[in-house]
Amino acid sequence: MNDQKFNVAVVGATGAVGEQILSLLDKRDFPISRLKLLSSARSAGTNINFKGQDITVEEATPESFEGIDIALFSAGGDVSKELAPHAVRHGAVCIDNTNAFRMDPNAPLVVPEVNAEQINEHNGIIANPNCSTIQMVTALKPLQDVYGISRIIVSTYQAVSGAGTRAIDELLRQSKAVLGGTEVNPDILPVASLPVKHQIAFNAIPQIDKFQDNGYTLEEMKMVRETKKIMQDDTIDVTATCVRIPVVYGHSESVYVELKKDYELEDVRKLLTEAPGITIMDDPASQTYPLATDAAGKPDVFVGRLRRDLGENRALNMWIVSDNLMKGAAWNAVQIAEIIAAKRSARS
Amino acid sequence: MNDQKFNVAVVGATGAVGEQILSLLDKRDFPISRLKLLSSARSAGTNINFKGQDITVEEATPESFEGIDIALFSAGGDVSKELAPHAVRHGAVCIDNTNAFRMDPNAPLVVPEVNAEQINEHNGIIANPNCSTIQMVTALKPLQDVYGISRIIVSTYQAVSGAGTRAIDELLRQSKAVLGGTEVNPDILPVASLPVKHQIAFNAIPQIDKFQDNGYTLEEMKMVRETKKIMQDDTIDVTATCVRIPVVYGHSESVYVELKKDYELEDVRKLLTEAPGITIMDDPASQTYPLATDAAGKPDVFVGRLRRDLGENRALNMWIVSDNLMKGAAWNAVQIAEIIAAKRSARS
Repeated sequence: MNDQKFNVAVVGATGAVGEQILSLLDKRDFPISRLKLLSSARSAGTNINFKGQDITVEEATPESFEGIDIALFSAGGDVSKELAPHAVRHGAVCIDNTNAFRMDPNAPLVVPEVNAEQINEHNGIIANPNCSTIQMVTALKPLQDVYGISRIIVSTYQAVSGAGTRAIDELLRQSKAVLGGTEVNPDILPVASLPVKHQIAFNAIPQIDKFQDNGYTLEEMKMVRETKKIMQDDTIDVTATCVRIPVVYGHSESVYVELKKDYELEDVRKLLTEAPGITIMDDPASQTYPLATDAAGKPDVFVGRLRRDLGENRALNMWIVSDNLMKGAAWNAVQIAEIIAAKRSARS
Repeated sequence: MNDQKFNVAVVGATGAVGEQILSLLDKRDFPISRLKLLSSARSAGTNINFKGQDITVEEATPESFEGIDIALFSAGGDVSKELAPHAVRHGAVCIDNTNAFRMDPNAPLVVPEVNAEQINEHNGIIANPNCSTIQMVTALKPLQDVYGISRIIVSTYQAVSGAGTRAIDELLRQSKAVLGGTEVNPDILPVASLPVKHQIAFNAIPQIDKFQDNGYTLEEMKMVRETKKIMQDDTIDVTATCVRIPVVYGHSESVYVELKKDYELEDVRKLLTEAPGITIMDDPASQTYPLATDAAGKPDVFVGRLRRDLGENRALNMWIVSDNLMKGAAWNAVQIAEIIAAKRSARS
């Protein structure tokens, strides 16, 4: 141990994920020398208190990253694409929460519980996976290690916070309208940049992000591609159906997983109980299983409803819940930052 | 055609499903001679207006069914178990919306679009399947007929109205409490008769009905067993994960279905478009897919998000939505009643 400290930049500091990143850097006592808060021109000028000190948010520009050691990006893919290369040029390691570099073969896509060793292979940019992928691969990694995985079929129950603070506001506003009997006027969801909007209050919308040519949405294809990349196995068949539901924080997932070997349910339970980052909540007798409202604000991935598939003997079904802004975004990014910091401290 | 009319009894006339049955008997101009409204002692005495006439709800007793031709039951399994045999004794045909007789080998389990021919095989009782099963088998029957089905994996997104009017009240009350920042106090869901309650507002509860020894809930096992019985094929592998979400009316289902033969997606789309009781809503370009809020109050089963599975070439994924109180309960029951009435009229 030594007392090396780092110059840290948070890009998208005023967003839903940025807020959580700051909260975690504070709680975890991340070794910060200088903290730079960056945002779009629109949000620049805001003051944010960090450990008793007011920090003014500055507009992110290519030169914002001079002297920065670690830059955490969560301001949208376009911002990352434009500015991360500049941060790298200035010598920073970028941890990018957006979709910009996830499938870039030069950027490792990292969930520390799954492939922490790949952090070392970066060329300046480490990609943080999509929220719905992170919680799933964290829960499945222990099974992959012991049994191998041949197939995953997942249906998601995703919180609106995954679409940002404006989507949270929209759900609350629409819910009040429905309860009060006034007009709902969808404005943001399912996809802010697309023309058609649907009511999310008291509804379930089977579209997250834009449709691709194969009939799947981008969110679904993220789960497919990212899972293979993080688990480093292109032979795993993955199919996803991603659905937005009226929940504020916490994605839930109904996951069918087919293993390559026979298994005993008790062994699977033991494996998951001992695995890092996972909390098992699975006791039908006491009606115990993971719930989004319980997971909110917590760093762990919660797993329950473990049971053998009724058709395929080598498959099982489970229910995986995690706070999409925490393990699904901010906490996974801060975990990566901590590993980088620990490595540099050990080296110096 | 002739003008034969029937003495009809509705048991559970004051409940969520009973209300829909009465509304449909009215709208469909069901040939009623005398309408008897029955309920528990608690609700007896209520007046319900039917076609301009006030009818007083009476307490259901074994002798309530004297002279009744068709009795529609939706007052809970215990009531059906006790009273349906008496209705049969009095010569009535019972259409039972509860779980009481669904797996009884002497009672046909009928979805008219799937196995209408089995209505004839009744011994006085025809069972109406579980809501989540009805909409799924209606959508899958055309595929079974042409390709055969080897496997179904379903994850549901179920509305609270499936748990009755008290559950609807609970969702609305809890939603107001969350929005107003007051205490939520769960009281009914997930299962009124079990000790542990969970918040449903802004949450997803992976429990509908009681847990069975195999780790599945009764709702999940209903989908498994009823699907095989209605589709008359015990070799279909079915696995279900049933989840309650904060929706008032309309169950949504993410369904993976594996066919026995190769298929073309366009052929499947055509088959479903031409099939009875199904409305296809499937146009990614215009962000068109079924939504619970759109299905509410309508009799059809809505199907969308049709796409080839990414792992198994003979499988496809789809999104199936229907009003759980309509096709999932009242409308399916009234359809059966109409078929019985038409047969008797044709015979007389």
